[in-house]
Amino acid sequence: MNPAVSTLRAILNPRSVAVIGASGDPAKFGGRVMHFLVKHGYRGRIVPVHPSATAVLGIPAVSKLAAAGDPVDVCILALPAAHLPAALEDCGRAGARGAVVITADFAETGAAGAARQDELLQIARSHGMRLIGPNCLGFINPPLQLALTSSVALAVEPMPRGAIGLASQSGSLMASLISHAQDLGTGFSVAATVGNQADVELCDLVEYFIEDENTRAICLYIEGLKNGARFLELAQRARAAGKPILAVKAGRSAAGQQVTQSHTASLAGSYAVWEAACRDHAVCLLDDPEALIYCADFLIRFGAPAASSIAVMSPSGGTVAVTGDRVVAAGLALAEPGAATAAELQKLLPPGRTINPLDVGGLPRASGLDSALTAYELLAKDPAVGAILIAVATTPQLEDKVRQWGRAALAGNKPTAILLTPGTLVDGARDALKEIHCPYTNRLDDTLRVLRSAVDYGEALRNPPPPASSSTISSNITAAVLAHATTLPEGRLTEPETKTLLRAGGIHTTDDVLAPTPAAAIEQAQGIGYPVVLKGVCRTLVHKSEAGAVKLNIADADALRTAWREIETRLAAHLPGATLTGCVVQPMIRDGTELIVGCRWDAQFGPVVIIGSGGVLVEILDDVQMAVAPISSAHAHRLITGLRIAPVLAGVRGRPAADVAALADTIAKLSVLAAALGPRLVELDINPLLVRDSGAGVIALDARATLMASAT
Amino acid sequence: MNPAVSTLRAILNPRSVAVIGASGDPAKFGGRVMHFLVKHGYRGRIVPVHPSATAVLGIPAVSKLAAAGDPVDVCILALPAAHLPAALEDCGRAGARGAVVITADFAETGAAGAARQDELLQIARSHGMRLIGPNCLGFINPPLQLALTSSVALAVEPMPRGAIGLASQSGSLMASLISHAQDLGTGFSVAATVGNQADVELCDLVEYFIEDENTRAICLYIEGLKNGARFLELAQRARAAGKPILAVKAGRSAAGQQVTQSHTASLAGSYAVWEAACRDHAVCLLDDPEALIYCADFLIRFGAPAASSIAVMSPSGGTVAVTGDRVVAAGLALAEPGAATAAELQKLLPPGRTINPLDVGGLPRASGLDSALTAYELLAKDPAVGAILIAVATTPQLEDKVRQWGRAALAGNKPTAILLTPGTLVDGARDALKEIHCPYTNRLDDTLRVLRSAVDYGEALRNPPPPASSSTISSNITAAVLAHATTLPEGRLTEPETKTLLRAGGIHTTDDVLAPTPAAAIEQAQGIGYPVVLKGVCRTLVHKSEAGAVKLNIADADALRTAWREIETRLAAHLPGATLTGCVVQPMIRDGTELIVGCRWDAQFGPVVIIGSGGVLVEILDDVQMAVAPISSAHAHRLITGLRIAPVLAGVRGRPAADVAALADTIAKLSVLAAALGPRLVELDINPLLVRDSGAGVIALDARATLMASAT
Repeated sequence: MNPAVSTLRAILNPRSVAVIGASGDPAKFGGRVMHFLVKHGYRGRIVPVHPSATAVLGIPAVSKLAAAGDPVDVCILALPAAHLPAALEDCGRAGARGAVVITADFAETGAAGAARQDELLQIARSHGMRLIGPNCLGFINPPLQLALTSSVALAVEPMPRGAIGLASQSGSLMASLISHAQDLGTGFSVAATVGNQADVELCDLVEYFIEDENTRAICLYIEGLKNGARFLELAQRARAAGKPILAVKAGRSAAGQQVTQSHTASLAGSYAVWEAACRDHAVCLLDDPEALIYCADFLIRFGAPAASSIAVMSPSGGTVAVTGDRVVAAGLALAEPGAATAAELQKLLPPGRTINPLDVGGLPRASGLDSALTAYELLAKDPAVGAILIAVATTPQLEDKVRQWGRAALAGNKPTAILLTPGTLVDGARDALKEIHCPYTNRLDDTLRVLRSAVDYGEALRNPPPPASSSTISSNITAAVLAHATTLPEGRLTEPETKTLLRAGGIHTTDDVLAPTPAAAIEQAQGIGYPVVLKGVCRTLVHKSEAGAVKLNIADADALRTAWREIETRLAAHLPGATLTGCVVQPMIRDGTELIVGCRWDAQFGPVVIIGSGGVLVEILDDVQMAVAPISSAHAHRLITGLRIAPVLAGVRGRPAADVAALADTIAKLSVLAAALGPRLVELDINPLLVRDSGAGVIALDARATLMASAT
Repeated sequence: MNPAVSTLRAILNPRSVAVIGASGDPAKFGGRVMHFLVKHGYRGRIVPVHPSATAVLGIPAVSKLAAAGDPVDVCILALPAAHLPAALEDCGRAGARGAVVITADFAETGAAGAARQDELLQIARSHGMRLIGPNCLGFINPPLQLALTSSVALAVEPMPRGAIGLASQSGSLMASLISHAQDLGTGFSVAATVGNQADVELCDLVEYFIEDENTRAICLYIEGLKNGARFLELAQRARAAGKPILAVKAGRSAAGQQVTQSHTASLAGSYAVWEAACRDHAVCLLDDPEALIYCADFLIRFGAPAASSIAVMSPSGGTVAVTGDRVVAAGLALAEPGAATAAELQKLLPPGRTINPLDVGGLPRASGLDSALTAYELLAKDPAVGAILIAVATTPQLEDKVRQWGRAALAGNKPTAILLTPGTLVDGARDALKEIHCPYTNRLDDTLRVLRSAVDYGEALRNPPPPASSSTISSNITAAVLAHATTLPEGRLTEPETKTLLRAGGIHTTDDVLAPTPAAAIEQAQGIGYPVVLKGVCRTLVHKSEAGAVKLNIADADALRTAWREIETRLAAHLPGATLTGCVVQPMIRDGTELIVGCRWDAQFGPVVIIGSGGVLVEILDDVQMAVAPISSAHAHRLITGLRIAPVLAGVRGRPAADVAALADTIAKLSVLAAALGPRLVELDINPLLVRDSGAGVIALDARATLMASAT
């Protein structure tokens, strides 16, 4: 085991805890912490630290931690910020292995707070002590009956114990999830908050959970990661360990990003990159914190579905219709049960009913209850059915039926999501399911999230995992790109410069050579053959078309001279003082589909490669796919397949198919180029990349990039 | 009042009820009905009808209804289907005004069941008696403490009384909604099921609710309407009466449609047409039945927001971030509070916090509680804020704060959706809100549905209502279209025939004249000027391009002759035995944006006009807008604005704007044409309609239609 993890394990599973600022008053932080420690029955040693009291809640107190004898495993501190450094110093001197700092008003409030936070971190490091927080709410370890938190969620007993490992950047979200887990009859191995992540960060907890035998699924509330690459490596390990990771990532919108930056001082990163990285690494990215519990509980009980299609059944015709509609609207496929299953089901059904979704209302009775259980079992044994959704509605003998369905679900091998559509009217059925530890949901939105995440996780597991970064990098391309980059200037590259970089990376471009004068351009045009394209080159010009610096369909030398003059005139008007370095001459090529292909440096995950529809489609389609670079050609092919324009590339209505193989190869090469240059390549766009008919390849018609000085 | 409505009013508000098949055994339908009648304290006369018992549950019984003295207002029948006709006949003879038939196995099971249902209807009509059902679960009238239903949802007391009128085609969905209304502390004026709608249908109940003074919002679960036009008329009346209609329509997917057809024998109709009709008539179409209650309750308490932007506040930073993200993802706008509001808020906030979404955690205290209430009131009085979402998370003194927020919401004039994110942990806060009758939700999905429907309803009210059908019809166009249609054959029309119909409707097309021979075509081509397009005309050929019957860019007479021969050869191979009637010659026109414009006869709503992106975009975009015809040019303009391709039509990146005025005019004219021909015009497609630059108009390049014999 990683030594950092074993320290964290000791802190999360302590034999002794100290409460700095202990109090008997539950209105105070230190009072709630003491109350919860005692109330939930923690059996380790508790050391209240208080300047004057001799005991807190009947437990002997000390005025300085050093007076407590043997060092404690973890201290919790909820003191005013001004008193924290000295108190933390005391903890370190007394040999504590870790400290949990509840106090807020650090990096989340700006630069001064960040400096105060750094001071805490230096104190902790000087004593070899791990720091959780600041600006967090501590953690709970239900197997140890340990609540080391001031959260009011712990007012309710018992603490929810189970197989979910939760790490949250928000304290009150942890509290809300503790409440929901209690209500659903599920719970946690450990639930921990990390606040500003000054030291212990989400990834440390993920690593702990991967190695912790009490944990079978990992749930995360993330505002920002300290190290995206580490997260993806851990996702690979969790996948190999058979432990699903489920995550909610705040900061999807600009508004959410602003909040997370003020909330726990995190860099949010692009949500689209998050989606791509999670999809490729079998991490279930959810939009709702409470759904973490539903989805994790389902995967823990049932595992991932072996097939992706869903069967729906309900004793209510109306509920069957609405649920069938919503399953389809959620992008899930309704299963088509085999002929044998259908024939058996038909025997149970009145005329006119469909097989899926299946109305099991008013079926004939067998041994006291209707035949809905038989119908369930027929669906469950059909391999075309990946998972079953039972939408429970009011029906006679409801509780008995629900108990039967729940037992059959747990005993069988078919993931089954039970939805209880009525309210407290059917709390008897809820209790019956809790009694047998069968997961259920109360709103169809959550049932669909459960099925969607389980199906996606199953599909991700059936795909090969992404190869380790280094193995896909072509060392030839990397060497060529790095060597060529030394010849390029810093900052914004011109179109011909960017194309030289692309060619160094093995990507096909037009063979642009800068023509410094009209005469040189005319000579080039004669070599290429009219009609040609003439484009102005100017380092400070970003949008060439808008500035009138692109002239198409030039028929002869006279027209070229005119075009050159126009470019000069328009540039002067558009960017006063800018210098026209010259022009490039290109052949007129229009036969193909225009895409945009590019790469960016992402603050969380590093190099990212991006493809999307180009031309007029950019204006009306949000048709973009991306992946953390580098990627293989096969991976690039999956991205292409995910584009909305994919049917056009594949050839529709008698059009020829495009050269998708060459496109995938180009995307993979660009991803290697991006990975090779790392943070130096801020961004690079090929726009358009023309994809020609199958066999005819692709060609970069225009490109631009921004290259920074290499880090030294 | 409409006399049919006054009869229905008497049935839904009866002074006396008879239970045919009464029983004391709650395991039987007639037993549950009796138990619920007695248990909920109905104060009218109850007449149990039983072949032999002298009393049921202590209430004197009769063996025949005729023996009961004064006629009853309504009978409820839950007998085996074989006994129903005689029993219904008895009810009619005894002078009952209405009958509720619970028994199933009628039209929903096929033709034989439909015949049995028709027999019931004839019996009821012969006695002037209204029939509710069959295959329904009756109704409740909470102000009268009347439960006339066998639904187990009535096992819970008290019946939820309130201002929501509910009409449902599904019995068990009504039961589920009764349960949820109880849990939320809201309820119904009347909640009724209509089952197979043999006589009383959803629209009858809508009309009743519009006139009923206890009802302030109308909720519907719809599988299919008997008369779509009546529904839209009633929607106009409900709008004028200030009573929002909220509806869930099953059958959105093919799977859901199949179920609804077997479930209550309803014709589902196209969901897209439903969406368009509801949008244009201020009906809130929801995807989830339970949400009907949340959304109706919210509109009853707060009315529609005066502005469409949302402010979000929460005492949890994590919840603020996630909620802000989800508000944006739901397509709702975050409000930008005015400078004065922002300045006042800044005084309350620690540094670095955003104004919206707003984290009100840890604010300074005023009179015992923190300043979150002050923040709420600042947002509430800002006119830029249309509605406020308060996401409640665990925080000290939660109940007191929630009660304060709820009171402020009810006292103020700003619609406020309160979300309680934790589970039973905060049931104290739930009880506090129920006590003051303040609506709340438990899942963000529902909060967003509440805000979305309220904002949409507010926006619909700010648009002018659609004009009454007749007023938009141009009588000139109608007369011309009807006259011309008499000259056309029945069935599939050829391209030139369809274009003559379009021109009769005032729509600009190419001037095609059928050329029966190559020589005739060459003469036409010389008149038009080369290059031309040559298209084969054949009544039985649907897809001309796929059959090779469209030849573009024909440069001269020789090329035309060759093209003609190829069309003949390809047609013979594609459709053996088909006859080439001739060809049409058209100029090569390509300068514009291709749209598809058409109309259809919809089973629920009649004539529908449709526009969408054409050309290659059809393959990759689901870019369609529609409306029930006829519509005005202004309405057509709103449809165009709703297309994804709208920015292209408006002119992007220096392209000229398209002639949107001419496009809107053409759509409106086509809608008049569709309304004039009614069900005779099964479908008509203009594909493509070329939209040229502003001022240059539009032109139908190709078209086809199917025309049926006129109804006589």
